[in-house]
Amino acid sequence: MADTATPHNVQIVLASRPHGEPTPENFRTETVPMPSPGDGEVLLRTIYLSLDPYMRGRLSAAKSYAEPYEVDAPLGGGTVCEVLESRSDDFAPGDVVLAFSTWSTHAVASARAIRKLDPSRAPLSTALGVLGMPGFTAYAGLAEIGQPKPGETVVVAAATGPVGSLVGQLAQRAGARAVGIAGGPHKCAYLDDIGFDVSIDHRSPTFVQDLEAATPDGIDVYFENVGGAVWDAVLRRLNDFARVPVCGVVATYNDTEAPAGPDRMPALMGAVLRKRLRIQGFIQSDFSSHLGDFHRTVGPLVADGTLAYREDVVQGLGAAPEAFMGMLRGANFGKLVVQVGDLPS
Amino acid sequence: MADTATPHNVQIVLASRPHGEPTPENFRTETVPMPSPGDGEVLLRTIYLSLDPYMRGRLSAAKSYAEPYEVDAPLGGGTVCEVLESRSDDFAPGDVVLAFSTWSTHAVASARAIRKLDPSRAPLSTALGVLGMPGFTAYAGLAEIGQPKPGETVVVAAATGPVGSLVGQLAQRAGARAVGIAGGPHKCAYLDDIGFDVSIDHRSPTFVQDLEAATPDGIDVYFENVGGAVWDAVLRRLNDFARVPVCGVVATYNDTEAPAGPDRMPALMGAVLRKRLRIQGFIQSDFSSHLGDFHRTVGPLVADGTLAYREDVVQGLGAAPEAFMGMLRGANFGKLVVQVGDLPS
Repeated sequence: MADTATPHNVQIVLASRPHGEPTPENFRTETVPMPSPGDGEVLLRTIYLSLDPYMRGRLSAAKSYAEPYEVDAPLGGGTVCEVLESRSDDFAPGDVVLAFSTWSTHAVASARAIRKLDPSRAPLSTALGVLGMPGFTAYAGLAEIGQPKPGETVVVAAATGPVGSLVGQLAQRAGARAVGIAGGPHKCAYLDDIGFDVSIDHRSPTFVQDLEAATPDGIDVYFENVGGAVWDAVLRRLNDFARVPVCGVVATYNDTEAPAGPDRMPALMGAVLRKRLRIQGFIQSDFSSHLGDFHRTVGPLVADGTLAYREDVVQGLGAAPEAFMGMLRGANFGKLVVQVGDLPS
Repeated sequence: MADTATPHNVQIVLASRPHGEPTPENFRTETVPMPSPGDGEVLLRTIYLSLDPYMRGRLSAAKSYAEPYEVDAPLGGGTVCEVLESRSDDFAPGDVVLAFSTWSTHAVASARAIRKLDPSRAPLSTALGVLGMPGFTAYAGLAEIGQPKPGETVVVAAATGPVGSLVGQLAQRAGARAVGIAGGPHKCAYLDDIGFDVSIDHRSPTFVQDLEAATPDGIDVYFENVGGAVWDAVLRRLNDFARVPVCGVVATYNDTEAPAGPDRMPALMGAVLRKRLRIQGFIQSDFSSHLGDFHRTVGPLVADGTLAYREDVVQGLGAAPEAFMGMLRGANFGKLVVQVGDLPS
């Protein structure tokens, strides 16, 4: 745990870009002088750091929707922080805020780029998960693209994760059946516990048959956040007019080249036509006009326990690289968060 | 030309299903007794038969959005016909109608399944092309999915065809730039004549570079009606938030198996995510609520010559198989129509 009195800042920088799966050598921990805020800025002490699959894309140099991380610079990420020092009239020491800062014990941020959190409304870590970017990804993707209707079947993979678990539960609230896919019996048991209509283990040798049995009326919405073999099996089960919001293809993030053939693209485009599929990529920030609705709708349902969520909290900034690498293999169980510093007293 | 007094009906049946590219052996011409209409039916004399790429799908046994044609049964198709005999109060001999009948000189149809045409409003063949199913495909795909905005770049292939030529012209009326792709210099010259901003020959060895030069600001809408190599080149040029209405993938209709690798599907799904693409298949009948708007908007623009269109009319029912096979190779120049019988006097 970081000591708030320390005069130093500890940060994790990108030592080198991974080729394929990231390795420990791609990360380096550094101790640097404490930064100091300028006018309109605040000094932050990190409490929670969010680790998310999209970060894998930013480790590479290729252009994407988010800028690549720079080599030798601290890695960026969503954080929950306490304000230690403020040079803005809008924040005071002791305020707890949502920030986009770095894998570090401390950081300086512009007061315009942070948002105050109310610790009495929900556990602070939820601002990085079910009530944060992943939760809003689920909400916005369903609202804008998935549009589940009563009686339809909605399938989501990584279903114990922060996006998937909310996709399933929100789909059920819209009257649809929720089929959750996860890796291993423990995760599937959790899905059963929180009320998914069916859970399926994608590691099972009978996965394809299990998916078929779980979707007797086909699939109307597939919320794509993993890619890979699950997508292959789902594609065959899609109904006419199925919607496929695509918010992630984590299974392929570590790929270094196109896999061997046959080339399935013509078959995919043929299915798009024959079944009149709608396949659409999105990033939650594209749909920020829904943000108010999201907080008004989902906030109370999380606060009163109607919507279940699960977090996987690892302790200490130093654990971040290993936890991140594990997440890309599905080793986390729930929203992955690093507790970097103590909760405010 | 069919003689309206003949007591026989000539029809072309599916002799066998093609494996890959259709061959003349897949078609057989038969002379059969003249059918006779029951209550609520009419006897039709075919004037024009429409030949369209979607028919290739129906030659195969595989399930698709349209039922497969049956072996030894006459092939189906859109037709413009004259009513010879009516057992319906809604139609009288001499009426000219739009029907979905068969590759035949005569047919019986339900009065409920045909629509009267006004020969004074536009040439009758246009009911199968620019003012018919292909024209409506262009209109509905742009209205529902493509949604071109002023200053955007819209690309369409098979641009001298009935769908593509209307896509480009309607995109321009929405304020977008229209880039048309066609096979060979004659077709490109035609696109220039009718006012496309740029025409590109996909048979040129410099096609990929030509497309790049023609789309300096990238591509916002790609109206997919061909598939194959054009789609590969276009995919790289798509902008963030590009829309891809998919109404046909004729380049792959004759494929008998998935092509060799590498497998481009993961790359496609990655692009969908990174660029937030919307790829959506449709069939014009899915959007029939736009049909009234289409006729009100496009009808007068065709009648007064504002919108250009081109037809490739082949003579005689017997020419249909060869013309159809040629169409799948891009041999037609404009909407392919078979003149089966004389125009009404």
